[in-house]
Amino acid sequence: SRQRKRYICTTVQKFGVSKIISLGNVGSGWVEARNSRGNVGLVPEDYIEVKTILIISFVFDFTSLFRAYCMKLENCVGLFLSIILLLSVMVILCHMAVGSVYSFDEEWDDDSDDGKSTGGYGGSQADEGGTMQRGGAHSTMKLSLNKFPGFSKTPNPEVYLLTKHISKGDDRLPIYTGEVGPVWLYPQIQLDCVVADPKKGSKMYGLKSYIEYQITPNTTNRPVNHRYKHFDWLYERLVEKFACALPIPCLPDKQVTGRFEEEFIKMRMERLQGWMSRMCRHPVISNSDVFQLFLNYRDEKEWKLGKRKAEKDEIVGVKIFSNIDPELPELDPAQVEQKYEMYSQFTRSMDNSVKELLTVGHLHWKRCTGPLQKEYRQIGKAFQNLSSVFNTSAYPREYTLTEALTATGKTYEEIAEIVAGQPKKDLHFLMETTHEYKGLLGCFPDTIAVHKAAIDKVKEADHLVVMNKISQQDKLIMEKNLSTMSYALQAEMNHFHSNRIYDYNRLVQFYLEEQVKFYETIAEKLKKALGQYTTM
Amino acid sequence: SRQRKRYICTTVQKFGVSKIISLGNVGSGWVEARNSRGNVGLVPEDYIEVKTILIISFVFDFTSLFRAYCMKLENCVGLFLSIILLLSVMVILCHMAVGSVYSFDEEWDDDSDDGKSTGGYGGSQADEGGTMQRGGAHSTMKLSLNKFPGFSKTPNPEVYLLTKHISKGDDRLPIYTGEVGPVWLYPQIQLDCVVADPKKGSKMYGLKSYIEYQITPNTTNRPVNHRYKHFDWLYERLVEKFACALPIPCLPDKQVTGRFEEEFIKMRMERLQGWMSRMCRHPVISNSDVFQLFLNYRDEKEWKLGKRKAEKDEIVGVKIFSNIDPELPELDPAQVEQKYEMYSQFTRSMDNSVKELLTVGHLHWKRCTGPLQKEYRQIGKAFQNLSSVFNTSAYPREYTLTEALTATGKTYEEIAEIVAGQPKKDLHFLMETTHEYKGLLGCFPDTIAVHKAAIDKVKEADHLVVMNKISQQDKLIMEKNLSTMSYALQAEMNHFHSNRIYDYNRLVQFYLEEQVKFYETIAEKLKKALGQYTTM
Repeated sequence: SRQRKRYICTTVQKFGVSKIISLGNVGSGWVEARNSRGNVGLVPEDYIEVKTILIISFVFDFTSLFRAYCMKLENCVGLFLSIILLLSVMVILCHMAVGSVYSFDEEWDDDSDDGKSTGGYGGSQADEGGTMQRGGAHSTMKLSLNKFPGFSKTPNPEVYLLTKHISKGDDRLPIYTGEVGPVWLYPQIQLDCVVADPKKGSKMYGLKSYIEYQITPNTTNRPVNHRYKHFDWLYERLVEKFACALPIPCLPDKQVTGRFEEEFIKMRMERLQGWMSRMCRHPVISNSDVFQLFLNYRDEKEWKLGKRKAEKDEIVGVKIFSNIDPELPELDPAQVEQKYEMYSQFTRSMDNSVKELLTVGHLHWKRCTGPLQKEYRQIGKAFQNLSSVFNTSAYPREYTLTEALTATGKTYEEIAEIVAGQPKKDLHFLMETTHEYKGLLGCFPDTIAVHKAAIDKVKEADHLVVMNKISQQDKLIMEKNLSTMSYALQAEMNHFHSNRIYDYNRLVQFYLEEQVKFYETIAEKLKKALGQYTTM
Repeated sequence: SRQRKRYICTTVQKFGVSKIISLGNVGSGWVEARNSRGNVGLVPEDYIEVKTILIISFVFDFTSLFRAYCMKLENCVGLFLSIILLLSVMVILCHMAVGSVYSFDEEWDDDSDDGKSTGGYGGSQADEGGTMQRGGAHSTMKLSLNKFPGFSKTPNPEVYLLTKHISKGDDRLPIYTGEVGPVWLYPQIQLDCVVADPKKGSKMYGLKSYIEYQITPNTTNRPVNHRYKHFDWLYERLVEKFACALPIPCLPDKQVTGRFEEEFIKMRMERLQGWMSRMCRHPVISNSDVFQLFLNYRDEKEWKLGKRKAEKDEIVGVKIFSNIDPELPELDPAQVEQKYEMYSQFTRSMDNSVKELLTVGHLHWKRCTGPLQKEYRQIGKAFQNLSSVFNTSAYPREYTLTEALTATGKTYEEIAEIVAGQPKKDLHFLMETTHEYKGLLGCFPDTIAVHKAAIDKVKEADHLVVMNKISQQDKLIMEKNLSTMSYALQAEMNHFHSNRIYDYNRLVQFYLEEQVKFYETIAEKLKKALGQYTTM
């Protein structure tokens, strides 16, 4: 009766549970739940039951079909629930017969299509600015801790620190000394891809529908199709495999309501494009098997096989450091710690700074589309009203002034619309990328914590040697491995810095260009209005 | 014991009493008061006593001197009050001995100099915009009704309508047909003057101080000096003499506190200049004896004699129409009424329209100097903070970007100041003149009411002829005189229209020119910041 199942349910964020990964009944109306971050806690059974049923009803195609049929009968709720549960069990058994619990995931779809919220996301629709509302829970990287049973929060680097690792040929991740210090091996041609052409697809006679995006890498120029849930699967794999060494920025938020509105689809596509481009730019991620599979699979079969393989990957969590091969002199622990401190400080400061920029940008966005637009409209109206009144004077020399005043009024009305439309033209880009950086910076504390844990372990090493818990040889291996970890962090930080400088240079430049155009356009319009007045 | 004195006291506006002109004791603790609008009402005696004493204490130089001395003794309030009253009576007797009750006014000074409010003006200091707070009571013209005893609200035009008037040589006010219809006789050279050089003067060993302005007319190029109270005296004379035919805009507000602050003095001077220029531009007003006296008096003696003469002028109120001589065909009453309706409608509509413009302008002013300035500062700070953080990266390729970001941040801080300073540069002028128009338009209802009353009287004329109250001849005279009044209104409206078109053409043109400069300056500054980024 304690059999574990993988129920995925999105629950209210304030409970700190974004996904419940596994459930176990502990009796007395409580169940033990473990979420995707590995946190374990008790959840009221009633609450979970309700959610589970709801989700199952969305998840399984047969169930949906049957439910739709049952809905028409309206009153047979009891019968309905029984049948749902029966069907659920059938489907579970059915899938277990196929052989793997992961194929189970294939049919999971929290990106479900009936527009009803399966959790508490109702209030978190994209705001006007469209940039500020990604959930806080999503801003920090999810280290999938199922892979490291025994460690409750930060993955313990001990597993790696004590291994005499051998870099395997294909998986080897070399680090070189570049002009700026330790760097990853960058490919000759940088991978990139275009996310485009969102299409509505449907399954089960139109009962389930979804959006499929076309992703075309610059390497093959051959498009592949993926739904949001595939991106999410890729994200989960990247987190499992790399998150101890590389901050993996989260995907754009899931959105339950309004998923088929054109505006939303466009925004999600833009954000998936941003995420994919960032992943493509990363030499380690872009070169990984799972990422290559995502971009290059040729048919359903290759995709399924690739997925299976990726999900069985053993080199995940701290083990990824075993693949890293810095062809550089070993660093002593003090140097490692100093680097760690610097990066820790920097990423925290930048996190605050990008948050400030987002806050200010958001305020400005709201001001432009709210009170400022209204005010310029009012100014426009006031001039036009004055013109209308003047027009009734029956005074013979009125015409030129009333025409000019009307033109002035209309100009301010146009300015109102220009002002309100401006943030979408310039601030949007600045905000979107800064938001990406906020997400990325939110991942650093977790990534950096692994390094801190390793530093602390190595600090203990002398004591452990004395206590005969480890050998002197072990201690040296630990120090060597810590040095390797530090090089990985340095290579990653240099990658981050180089991208950051590129991004912000481009970003602010674009912003200023658009701002210049904005002010020039207004000046031009006002000049034109001015030309209508007589010079006396 | 019912002897009338002329106590001038500024009292709380909400009582609808801005100046109490005369007082009569009716017993039981109440006094009958008549204000400058001719409204009569009962006022609690205690209230008046207190005010009167306060005012007397400010009014009389001897009293002030003595009071200042007494203040040092602190506790001798009873003695103090007795002495004040005694002195007041002495001064009154003294002045009466000189011969005229008007010389009494000479020493009245509600523009008194100790910074204490003599009424309820405490809260009405100039706001940030500096334009919105002239009291409502001041927005409507004060028709000094003492001159028309027997009429309680609108001056009764009957006195004039029934007179066979003879236009006297010098006082004759001709009306011609101009291109735009009936017009006043405009002088060859338009009178203008410069109000400048405000100087602090003092009396009574420095116990009383005041600001004296220098007014230089373009005709004589010889400066004369006047205090605010002299402007106020001129205003009262113009209202008495012309307000039935011409709207006389009120003076800029009296201000009791902060009168010696540079900013206030500058603003009052600017507004006195605006008022004087408008008066100079008016062919009837600028040509009047009292206005000429104000601008051209050669010495104190000429000034005093001129004042005496002006205060004794008999051709005031509706009698002014006797001077008007339209050399134009007589209008029938229907035509007169139609014109009246049109002007009434127009001035009301324009009144609403300028009020809207003032409201919108005030909002915009507050937005620019408040939230917008703050926001641009915040944007500036956010860029500069980002730059500071980037500067700590120890990454070797940081310099260009951090320099550019700092420049961008500083540019937005400069923009914040430009934005906050802009209303003073452009909106100020638009607001000040529009406020002048609001004042002027507030005078029209009173002026127009005289015409309406005349129209109604003439409508009754047929009936009065039948009743043998007036002769057929009288009726014809009334119609002729009504036609004259209408020509006066038409000439005045045409004067108003021509000035309005000139003013608003100039105003909005200036506003737009400054706005264009404003947007161009910002664009230029941003372009300069943009130049700091590397093009990649």
